Amino acid sequence: RIDGKRLWDSLMDMARFGATPKGGVRRLTLTDIDRQGRDHFRARCTAAGLTVRVDEIGNMFARRPGRDPDRLPVLFGSHLDSQPSGGKFDGALGVIAGLEVMRSLNDLGIVTEAPLELVNWTDEEGSRFGHSLMGSGVWAGVYALDKVQGLTDLDGATVQAALEGIGYAGPEKARPFPADAYFELHIEQGPILEREEKQIGIVTGAQAQVWYDAVCIGQDSHAGTTPPSARKDALVAAARIIDLVDQLMRAQGEDGRGTVGQLQVLPNSRNVIPGEVRFSVEFRHPDDATVATLAQQFEARASALAQGCGVRLDLTELFRIPAQPFDPACVDLVRQAAARLGLSSREIVSGAGHDAVYVARHVPTAMIFTPCKDGLSHNEAESIDPVEAEAGCQVLFEAVVARANR
Amino acid sequence: RIDGKRLWDSLMDMARFGATPKGGVRRLTLTDIDRQGRDHFRARCTAAGLTVRVDEIGNMFARRPGRDPDRLPVLFGSHLDSQPSGGKFDGALGVIAGLEVMRSLNDLGIVTEAPLELVNWTDEEGSRFGHSLMGSGVWAGVYALDKVQGLTDLDGATVQAALEGIGYAGPEKARPFPADAYFELHIEQGPILEREEKQIGIVTGAQAQVWYDAVCIGQDSHAGTTPPSARKDALVAAARIIDLVDQLMRAQGEDGRGTVGQLQVLPNSRNVIPGEVRFSVEFRHPDDATVATLAQQFEARASALAQGCGVRLDLTELFRIPAQPFDPACVDLVRQAAARLGLSSREIVSGAGHDAVYVARHVPTAMIFTPCKDGLSHNEAESIDPVEAEAGCQVLFEAVVARANR
Ligand SMILES: NC(=O)NCCC(=O)O
Ligand SMILES: NC(=O)NCCC(=O)O
Repeated sequence: RIDGKRLWDSLMDMARFGATPKGGVRRLTLTDIDRQGRDHFRARCTAAGLTVRVDEIGNMFARRPGRDPDRLPVLFGSHLDSQPSGGKFDGALGVIAGLEVMRSLNDLGIVTEAPLELVNWTDEEGSRFGHSLMGSGVWAGVYALDKVQGLTDLDGATVQAALEGIGYAGPEKARPFPADAYFELHIEQGPILEREEKQIGIVTGAQAQVWYDAVCIGQDSHAGTTPPSARKDALVAAARIIDLVDQLMRAQGEDGRGTVGQLQVLPNSRNVIPGEVRFSVEFRHPDDATVATLAQQFEARASALAQGCGVRLDLTELFRIPAQPFDPACVDLVRQAAARLGLSSREIVSGAGHDAVYVARHVPTAMIFTPCKDGLSHNEAESIDPVEAEAGCQVLFEAVVARANR
Repeated sequence: RIDGKRLWDSLMDMARFGATPKGGVRRLTLTDIDRQGRDHFRARCTAAGLTVRVDEIGNMFARRPGRDPDRLPVLFGSHLDSQPSGGKFDGALGVIAGLEVMRSLNDLGIVTEAPLELVNWTDEEGSRFGHSLMGSGVWAGVYALDKVQGLTDLDGATVQAALEGIGYAGPEKARPFPADAYFELHIEQGPILEREEKQIGIVTGAQAQVWYDAVCIGQDSHAGTTPPSARKDALVAAARIIDLVDQLMRAQGEDGRGTVGQLQVLPNSRNVIPGEVRFSVEFRHPDDATVATLAQQFEARASALAQGCGVRLDLTELFRIPAQPFDPACVDLVRQAAARLGLSSREIVSGAGHDAVYVARHVPTAMIFTPCKDGLSHNEAESIDPVEAEAGCQVLFEAVVARANR
């Protein structure tokens, strides 16, 4: 069995990098805090006898040899980057649990048939550069490397400059090398497992999503002298579009998702009618067709709303991820492990995007969810129970070993 | 007559401080750029034989003695601070034209009966610390000095620290010393004079306004996993309130004003439902009663909108300025000067707040407007015609001299 206390202590160790006063974590991808977390992780991997490689988009692979050098490796992992005001477990749980799997195998003197590789994917969150699942997306060939390297954050820093700045623009090519399977343990980030008192979510797939960049362009002018008829208020236009996103979401019932999470006003002065507003828009749903409908309705109606304010809307679709079913055989290994361990479980579709979604395009993949308090994530108050973390890690261990020794 | 070329050259000289690539000015109050502009202005005043005093809120008074030391001074001026992306003339015109009046008097060897004082008021714009008319407001006793000293900008810097930082926390008390009159030349910042092809606006008063700080507090959570029923989206709440502000304004017809100019989202991440949104709200109208009605309707309906999103609204009224009529005798001096000079003119109520509004509570006051291109202000493209600047300055000269020699 894995060591639950060592797992928890290692999670708390990692949570020191970017710790916030409110008990959360701010470890934005490719910042110096991220570098510190990565260096710490690399040192722990090396200490556990693993060989660490870094690819050109900063993905880290920590390898443990198998008995049979001809067998394809079994991959598992997640991500160490966080939201601007994120929690201690979103991503870190999967990586640190993976380290615990490696350590437990060392303790037990087990050598698996297939080699094992623990992965830390770069920029899963997407909050800094606007591309979630960036590292896995480049690895899987979904995003072109050179395009991603040129993406900028709000301060104008490019991905490539940030990678070089922290010394994680590695020598390995970022492309889908052959692998036997990929497993990812993650917190659910939603309320379902907790509500139904299940310890393990057997993740059968992830829902579809589409992300946009939106820019409303009006004209900045004086708030006191510009009469209603002469206004081209970019913020009033944006406000109506935000309301539209919410309405479109609600029209799809409880499975609909529609969010404006990021917004910036220019010139952002109290007595100036805003001339420009830049904001993000995203929609999600388990069905591809519904996401397509949401996107279509949104594109058609948002422009009309802006026009009604004398404002131009520039809309750029950043990416669209179809719904991704996971590999039945890998999912079954998770199901069997949970059953064998006597853990309560249910099947679940992931509401969040995960690196597993892109990896699944090339490698048989499955995910394991553990419950989190009040379903709350992307929040500093994100919290899980050490017992649940241990259960999730034990399922990961069993699934990985079963696959590697099959 | 005043020297139109010297006036224009001096305006362009001042526009170098904080010049932006798009031809505008970014000279935010109490920044180092503001200090450079102030130092330049002080040097030009001293060179013109004026004695410069600075008060504790940074207001600058440049005095030219009169023949009769017992006469109260005639004041005139405006402000040198600008919006974040402001124009070259908003404020600077009144100060630099005042300097030109002093220089012309020197050239002509005129000593007025009453002393003259040219004023540069601190932080007229209000975009940095949230209090427009700050320097004149403290001087006039409308704002308590210690309260204003503690106001902070978005980065947490206080007014007092900023004053000391640029060396303009002066030794003089900021309070309404006795004065005979105050005249302020300013660009109209609206479309009326240009539309009616008038060279001079005889400003009879300024409209009423109310400013608020608003904070919507919901709960940040994951955009992909949080179902519609569990969302407490602070940005959706803010969006509906922004729409309300626009609707309330439009219900008042062409004289209504209602604006959300500044807005900040937390944590401002693409895939996080915003947990907090902070924004400004302001309403204006020529009638006090209408502003009171707007304020009442807004306060009642905004909270309900927030509640409908599961969001709390905290609303703070920052200040309310009643409509301010100017002094009939001073207004008449402006009217007479325009007529004598053969300039086309019309009476006008100011849509913008001006330092003159607070000064008028203690000192007989009038204002002179000149047209600006397309009525555009609080915009880097703000533009005026040198001929109009000269005409406005000449009216200022005549009104000031007439009053000082009466
Ligand atoms: N797991 C997770 O929070 N991923 C971030 C990408 C997304 O927005 O779903
Ligand atoms: N003149 C001017 O732009 N004043 C700024 C204060 C206001 O918002 O009216």
